[in-house]
Amino acid sequence: MTSSGTKPLLLYSAATPNGQQAFVILEELKAAYPGIDYDFEKINIPQRQQKEPWFLKINPNGRIPALVDRSRDNFSVFESAAISLYLAQKYDKEYKFWFNPATSPNEYSEMLQWIFFAHGGLGPMMGQCRHSEHFNHLEPAVPYAKNRYINETKRLYGVLEIRLADRDYLAGEGRGKYSLADIKVFPWASLHVHAGVETLDEWPGVKSWIARCIARPGAQAGLSAPGALYT
Amino acid sequence: MTSSGTKPLLLYSAATPNGQQAFVILEELKAAYPGIDYDFEKINIPQRQQKEPWFLKINPNGRIPALVDRSRDNFSVFESAAISLYLAQKYDKEYKFWFNPATSPNEYSEMLQWIFFAHGGLGPMMGQCRHSEHFNHLEPAVPYAKNRYINETKRLYGVLEIRLADRDYLAGEGRGKYSLADIKVFPWASLHVHAGVETLDEWPGVKSWIARCIARPGAQAGLSAPGALYT
Repeated sequence: MTSSGTKPLLLYSAATPNGQQAFVILEELKAAYPGIDYDFEKINIPQRQQKEPWFLKINPNGRIPALVDRSRDNFSVFESAAISLYLAQKYDKEYKFWFNPATSPNEYSEMLQWIFFAHGGLGPMMGQCRHSEHFNHLEPAVPYAKNRYINETKRLYGVLEIRLADRDYLAGEGRGKYSLADIKVFPWASLHVHAGVETLDEWPGVKSWIARCIARPGAQAGLSAPGALYT
Repeated sequence: MTSSGTKPLLLYSAATPNGQQAFVILEELKAAYPGIDYDFEKINIPQRQQKEPWFLKINPNGRIPALVDRSRDNFSVFESAAISLYLAQKYDKEYKFWFNPATSPNEYSEMLQWIFFAHGGLGPMMGQCRHSEHFNHLEPAVPYAKNRYINETKRLYGVLEIRLADRDYLAGEGRGKYSLADIKVFPWASLHVHAGVETLDEWPGVKSWIARCIARPGAQAGLSAPGALYT
């Protein structure tokens, strides 16, 4: 596939929570630093473009998002969280959206802890909630699986609530600082209805934290980027 | 809970793939550097000790493993991959098991990409395979869910095979270097029988890579540590 554009970064993505995460960090960086910009190529998931040989060379796992850094010899990165960490390390030299591992090792580690929490927990479980909606149509006698994923998703909202009860953001000293951890988690957490969780009233700290993240201009730009919007 | 021992690090863990990962990195570091040592407290999962209030203060998600660094004011870390990265950053100053983010940013990023691949893919899917064994007993008419997880697990072995076809380890230049990425993935990948995948003959590169990782003295020590052994 030939890619249009000549901007330093090239994002392959689509409108999914992991795809949105990549748009948000790119838009935050673009607003914060002159010279950072990216082209976007939409991957058509229903047409299984993500499984085509040219894309598997970029991500052998055949998933979006994936990033190509044209300014660094087309180095490619897959996995949304690895993309965020790569972009932060190479382009967020003032630590606006992360923490300096050398001088703030504890805050840096906290950020990673919450990124992994979402990457292995909230994301996969919410994904299964949505999938179990489908297989309940196929085999309607299976409330067990669906309930299991919804209950686990609710438990994970409870974990976030404990963390956010007395802070504004997931990682950082005091009330915390908006960072890659929030950018990782809020696109998933805001999708509660799709995962079968009707309201977040039970978790007021999570609810106001999502609103706080979404209100940021960078987040707005990321969520409304062409390709990031749910249609 | 009062913890026995006075060693610089304290690991709370149990015999699971994520628990083993923590033992392996700790044993590798202990063999590689004088002064690094850890105490171990077993968390009794069937008794739900991981959900007790004292443990939720260490990990609000109520999961093992968790690490407390007594030498750094009892700083605590949860999520197995975050523990590995924390230990590497603070204690593997010679980059024996990771890559220097400043001088080897691409190799460091590759390592993270494969860690996230396993953390959000292979781990959760294999966990669901094992769980679906249970709910098939409850609701025997549900082959769909079980097959879905086994098929996805097989697909992920295929992704690892592509990566390992011409290299010894997951990340690093040339044939790669044993790193946190391998330590993350091999304890899961070696459990294929438990996830309903009878043999790895279809993926010879994966098979020999697992053997290569397991043969290391540090990995051996980690896998056979009291608490890491499956009973």
